[in-house]
Amino acid sequence: MMERPPSKGAETITAAELSMSWSALESDERVQAYRRLRREEAEDFFQGLPSADQAALLAALTKGERRLWLRLLAPDDVADILLEVSPEEQEELLSLLDEPTRREASALLAYEEDEAGGLMSPWFARVRPEATVDEAISYVKRQARDHLETIYYGYVLDAEQRLLGVVSLRQLMIAPGDRRVSDIMKTDVVSVNEDVDQEAVARRFAEHDLVAIPVVDAEGRMKGIVTADDIVDVVEEEATEDIQKLGGMQALDAPYLRTPLLRMVGKRAGWLSALFLGELLTATAMGHYEDEIARAVVLALFVPLIISSGGNSGSQATTLVIRAMALGEIRLADFWRVCRRELASGLALGGILGALGFARVVLWEELFGTYGEHYRPIAMTVAISLVGVVMWGTLSGALLPFVLRALRFDPASASAPFVATLVDVSGLVIYFSVAELLLRGLLL
Amino acid sequence: MMERPPSKGAETITAAELSMSWSALESDERVQAYRRLRREEAEDFFQGLPSADQAALLAALTKGERRLWLRLLAPDDVADILLEVSPEEQEELLSLLDEPTRREASALLAYEEDEAGGLMSPWFARVRPEATVDEAISYVKRQARDHLETIYYGYVLDAEQRLLGVVSLRQLMIAPGDRRVSDIMKTDVVSVNEDVDQEAVARRFAEHDLVAIPVVDAEGRMKGIVTADDIVDVVEEEATEDIQKLGGMQALDAPYLRTPLLRMVGKRAGWLSALFLGELLTATAMGHYEDEIARAVVLALFVPLIISSGGNSGSQATTLVIRAMALGEIRLADFWRVCRRELASGLALGGILGALGFARVVLWEELFGTYGEHYRPIAMTVAISLVGVVMWGTLSGALLPFVLRALRFDPASASAPFVATLVDVSGLVIYFSVAELLLRGLLL
Repeated sequence: MMERPPSKGAETITAAELSMSWSALESDERVQAYRRLRREEAEDFFQGLPSADQAALLAALTKGERRLWLRLLAPDDVADILLEVSPEEQEELLSLLDEPTRREASALLAYEEDEAGGLMSPWFARVRPEATVDEAISYVKRQARDHLETIYYGYVLDAEQRLLGVVSLRQLMIAPGDRRVSDIMKTDVVSVNEDVDQEAVARRFAEHDLVAIPVVDAEGRMKGIVTADDIVDVVEEEATEDIQKLGGMQALDAPYLRTPLLRMVGKRAGWLSALFLGELLTATAMGHYEDEIARAVVLALFVPLIISSGGNSGSQATTLVIRAMALGEIRLADFWRVCRRELASGLALGGILGALGFARVVLWEELFGTYGEHYRPIAMTVAISLVGVVMWGTLSGALLPFVLRALRFDPASASAPFVATLVDVSGLVIYFSVAELLLRGLLL
Repeated sequence: MMERPPSKGAETITAAELSMSWSALESDERVQAYRRLRREEAEDFFQGLPSADQAALLAALTKGERRLWLRLLAPDDVADILLEVSPEEQEELLSLLDEPTRREASALLAYEEDEAGGLMSPWFARVRPEATVDEAISYVKRQARDHLETIYYGYVLDAEQRLLGVVSLRQLMIAPGDRRVSDIMKTDVVSVNEDVDQEAVARRFAEHDLVAIPVVDAEGRMKGIVTADDIVDVVEEEATEDIQKLGGMQALDAPYLRTPLLRMVGKRAGWLSALFLGELLTATAMGHYEDEIARAVVLALFVPLIISSGGNSGSQATTLVIRAMALGEIRLADFWRVCRRELASGLALGGILGALGFARVVLWEELFGTYGEHYRPIAMTVAISLVGVVMWGTLSGALLPFVLRALRFDPASASAPFVATLVDVSGLVIYFSVAELLLRGLLL
């Protein structure tokens, strides 16, 4: 193999060994280690890498090697790599491809990466409706000899490339050889439009337990297929994005350890600063109650307890609702049902925390005499505020995602820290209002 | 169709219509609507339902219907339904099955639901190594006529059922008919052990872009296959669990709107109360600084701001690290790398918030004269505390998942609220210590 002269004295390693250490290796170490794989293993290994790693590896190889490895990939995988590199590198990589793959990969680049069109492979097995089963099998076999992504389904298209039906290879194999494809095909085909979001494509897979799903354009013409193995990646990717947003930051586009430090700080600093500016309102609110605090310092002692309880219950509610929305379990129309449920949950949870808070104040008074003669109204203030703050936190955490979705923002932006910040400010108002009501004439 | 007499005057509906409204229907409405599907659509619809819904639907149907629908399912799907019902109902459902399916389903019940063995289907295409390609194709065809879950791979087994290799149907179809299977099979098979956790199975799929993965026992004997469509569900399920834990609660076992209210409150109350008990320490810490607050009420005003900034930065860090661990991007061995990264990130983020905090105090003093003559040391106290608290939050949020994993707990228990609680208490100590240092002799 001219392209990969074995390094002097280098021992071969296995793909499994390389997989284990891959994330710990620097890029030049990766290239060296990669060259020590046996050819067959190297092919599998390369195809299994994320596109960013494939792009980095290609960049470090010789031109001959680049051509070799690039041509192993299906056009949709090539397109993913092209999205990772600079326009000049795109040109160079495209020039290494054979003509049909270049055409397909360029066409795929026109799609958004997270749409069905961007996920799909343009290689699938086409079948004519009037073909017999035997003809279809031999036709599928011929197509399989080129780089077909999957031949587990044959897609039955008319002359205008419109999708009429689908036959599984399994159906073809068990049907009598002289039946017409149009007699055995399933016409009720689950398909997705090319501009459908990848999250919706994943939902379709989960609902229908499919191995591959055809992608059609607005006129019903078939453009390609998305296969289940790509969807596993999509589902993980989307969950990661949602989790990172829920944690109160912009989603990273790359694995944690591979994201340059400055870029990661950038993704975190934006939201953190926004949340900080929101939290500045707590200083304003506290300033508003400065006189009350000066008169009854004991009030200040419970501030962190009260506001964090609101934040925690809000975090629970918003997490539940956002995930249920992402999974399609909750729609905008469920607003009132969710409202009722969270009102009831908030009341129950607030009651529990309120009772605990009450017990804490009374207990400390009995044990240490911490709170003086007015410990009962203080305990009541803490308990009632907790019920109010937890209910408010629960309700706003649950309903904020609805508001965001109705306004066509991503509901996952209602992150736990965002809800906590919202609840902190209003929690202070609730707490000091209850205190004024119960402690006026006593401590205030 | 004797089993499904059409309701009087009922119009048929389509599976798509039913899917749309399914989550909003009560169980009796579901049964009625289901009976109005055309037979063919009903079959697909039933197979696509989650097992809990399948079990509920079966329970509401007549015995004849139950037999009919149950027999549509592969043994692994039957086993999933059996896990949803009472032991008596299990008996009844098992009695409706044909003998081989009953045996297979019972065998699967012995596996944990979230292990490879619990996910797998025992139906796969077996091939002998010495068979020719033509023999293998006709053999696979024969097996496909029964309920084979997938025939896209043929698994080559020896006489002791040990897995020797795999041939894809595609390879069979493009190989000359008289070659031996053993000549064309791939011997370097990616497989999983039957007791491997489903999350690890999903990781395998994502790494190798597979359609199906064989499951073997400790002796290398093949027990079944797990297919990619099942894995899509697993990945979503695992992400949902992690997200709910990150939100500071126990994972629900069912969709949000299907979880009984009391059960949901139970899942949330445990963690919320635990966090509350943790937060009670803030009241103790604040009590410790009661004298300082009485002397300089201005200190109390910034308490929510300071501790929430620590909580927010901790939430970001813990979310990032937990997700990266779940995806296998970070291992225990990466401890020091993560440590260094988060120390640097924390310093940068703390610097940004510290500068914002400093500016806020100075600006308000210039505009409104809020903080009096000592506004500079107050501004410095706020700024330095923010740097300290954000660094501490970032570091503890990032490292807590490592500690939990090293202790063999689930790292996802280091939820955002848990980290926030931890950081709240220590944040107060940092803040008041800085204040004592900078404000002694001025305000304190």
